[in-house]
Amino acid sequence: MKRNVLIIGAGGVAQVVAHKCAQNNDVLGEIHIASRTLSKCEAILETVRDKAAMKTDGVLKAHQVDAMDSAAVAALIRDTGAQIVINVGSAFVNMTVLDACLETGAAYIDTAIHEDPAKICEIPPWYGNYEWKKRDLCAERGVTAILGAGFDPGVVNAFARFAIDRMDEVKSIDIVDINAGSHGKYFATNFDPEINFREFTGTVYYWEDQQWKETRMFESGRDWDLPVVGTQRAYQSGHDEVHSLATNYPQADVRFWMGFGEHYINVFTVLQNLGLLSEQPVTTAEGQKVVPLKLVKAVLPDPASLAPDYTGKTCIGDLVKGVKDGEEVEIFVYNVADHKDAYEEVGSQGISYTAGVPPVAAAMLVATGEWDAGTMKNVEEMDPKPFFTLLDGMGLPTRIKDAQGDRPWNA
Amino acid sequence: MKRNVLIIGAGGVAQVVAHKCAQNNDVLGEIHIASRTLSKCEAILETVRDKAAMKTDGVLKAHQVDAMDSAAVAALIRDTGAQIVINVGSAFVNMTVLDACLETGAAYIDTAIHEDPAKICEIPPWYGNYEWKKRDLCAERGVTAILGAGFDPGVVNAFARFAIDRMDEVKSIDIVDINAGSHGKYFATNFDPEINFREFTGTVYYWEDQQWKETRMFESGRDWDLPVVGTQRAYQSGHDEVHSLATNYPQADVRFWMGFGEHYINVFTVLQNLGLLSEQPVTTAEGQKVVPLKLVKAVLPDPASLAPDYTGKTCIGDLVKGVKDGEEVEIFVYNVADHKDAYEEVGSQGISYTAGVPPVAAAMLVATGEWDAGTMKNVEEMDPKPFFTLLDGMGLPTRIKDAQGDRPWNA
Repeated sequence: MKRNVLIIGAGGVAQVVAHKCAQNNDVLGEIHIASRTLSKCEAILETVRDKAAMKTDGVLKAHQVDAMDSAAVAALIRDTGAQIVINVGSAFVNMTVLDACLETGAAYIDTAIHEDPAKICEIPPWYGNYEWKKRDLCAERGVTAILGAGFDPGVVNAFARFAIDRMDEVKSIDIVDINAGSHGKYFATNFDPEINFREFTGTVYYWEDQQWKETRMFESGRDWDLPVVGTQRAYQSGHDEVHSLATNYPQADVRFWMGFGEHYINVFTVLQNLGLLSEQPVTTAEGQKVVPLKLVKAVLPDPASLAPDYTGKTCIGDLVKGVKDGEEVEIFVYNVADHKDAYEEVGSQGISYTAGVPPVAAAMLVATGEWDAGTMKNVEEMDPKPFFTLLDGMGLPTRIKDAQGDRPWNA
Repeated sequence: MKRNVLIIGAGGVAQVVAHKCAQNNDVLGEIHIASRTLSKCEAILETVRDKAAMKTDGVLKAHQVDAMDSAAVAALIRDTGAQIVINVGSAFVNMTVLDACLETGAAYIDTAIHEDPAKICEIPPWYGNYEWKKRDLCAERGVTAILGAGFDPGVVNAFARFAIDRMDEVKSIDIVDINAGSHGKYFATNFDPEINFREFTGTVYYWEDQQWKETRMFESGRDWDLPVVGTQRAYQSGHDEVHSLATNYPQADVRFWMGFGEHYINVFTVLQNLGLLSEQPVTTAEGQKVVPLKLVKAVLPDPASLAPDYTGKTCIGDLVKGVKDGEEVEIFVYNVADHKDAYEEVGSQGISYTAGVPPVAAAMLVATGEWDAGTMKNVEEMDPKPFFTLLDGMGLPTRIKDAQGDRPWNA
């Protein structure tokens, strides 16, 4: 059954979402996109038309909305007849958009956890601070909400579930995110610098020995030997999926590792030590109040601008260890994506591509009913197989590597 | 003859100036200090009283003034009966303060070149863009203006003159400024970060083969083996005194070298490459216009706050090469100062100390008539010997090192 989609947001990920919705509008129906700035939405739809991405004739329309205004979002859902909302706006708008879905009955899908602009790194599990407080209400009203359905969180949660389903007992889940691509700039972040840096400036929480443990960014590093991208150094980082996986699989250690080069770490360290990554305003000699992180965001390249010159590949996967038939086993479930391929298909770089394709697959599964849970779920609570099947055909094939070799997940 | 002094500015250098004026108020008369923020002036006078620095009973008074308002400065000069103005305010106020001196007949002394907030690194010689345009008017009205009478520019100009006076022909002047002290912070500048970074972000001009040549900061580095501080790496930097010395001694090569550690260069390079040292405003996503350099200044430690924990020494000197009696000769004229000694005496760190003592010596020479030129002069145009004699007794002794050994300048 076709279901109209409303995309919230107009950044690099929203562009990927729009293209992928268009490519699948035989399943998804009308495509609406809304953000604070109408012209940004229109620019995205222009790229969709340029690539002739619409699979069948259909509605493709831009709207202006303040996503912090729940009533305005609800009105737009009603006006557009949207039955699925894909929220890829700023991480600060999750709760107002979710409220609008609860109000209207539309299904809700997002790709990152809610954040309060004034707080960094709240107490674990992070989902407990905001989203999960609405879980009972979702169930009561039969509203489907699929949380964290990007790549990480999202596909990596499904990777974990897939691996765990093949074992009798899970012992550890290590999620590794390596971007071995090159954008050719002195320094840039791959998505909104404000959100990007906020991930790294607070406490890094991880789950070990059935309890939350803490470290700091770049304190815990390890070399990983991975398919295609080779040996890469990655550091324990705070990440959304650690908080849901640790809650759903408390018997397993859960850690997230992100790859960083020396140059990135150096620039980050300088900015952080100088106080330039702070979300708290400082006052200049002239009396102007400025949030340093917002200025840093303003001087860095727009992540979307990196796409045309981005080359190289990403490798994101889960190393899951456990026990099967009394034997210790391990499996690496992963995807490799190519920046240039992503740009050629949808005009975006690989990081936006990996984040933007999965929520569209999730939306299609909601539309077909397979993931239409009628309540709030994290991705590891859903069947991963139809998700992988869709992603295989949408540009993000899943592979596995274990004692039996390296092959497609369903080979 | 006692002459009342008006100090413009209330930063670290102004504090040193106030203490040194107080210690010499038998020559200088009343001491007035004025800046935009009255409380900063009062705080400085409080430290003067704490140290019982006044040599004889006398007036010590704080005032509020906007130094960008020439008429207000002139009115304050008249109100206070000031006959000498020591301008150690922001480099942006030189011309308005100089105009007030031209208006009232008071002698003018500063320690750094005038700067336009909107411009970085103008065409050489820098003094020609602003100060020297008023030279004829100074002469016409008989107003003494001693430009650049800090340490560098200032004492190093006198070092050059002293060395040149001992030769038949000068071939090169290399000014070397090494701060081998440690402030214990992750990163800090030794004086106003805004002015500090502005020195390094533009073209580095130097004078060689009787013409202006250009390089960029940190491109031209050299190790210097110096008294007390040992071997130190320094880099060619743009600096005021190169512009007057090259004009007054066009036959000599004139270069300025500033010492930097790897850590300083790394932080500077990151900030500059990201655009965070720009004096041009950028607009944040929220629409706020912010000058990056002003935010960087706001997050860095106040240079004055470094004083209590600063240890180690500075060495600043001129290596002058030339010909004497047909032989190639060279001489290094220099001073070594100690951060801790400076703090104990006047509550400031060594960089402020070396910058703040010399203009007071210059003021005393104006008061005694020895440097009361009745026109505009750079320091190398004045007799260096009475200047050195005063500085020897004020905490900044001059030494020389040549083929005959290392000794006081007058030994």
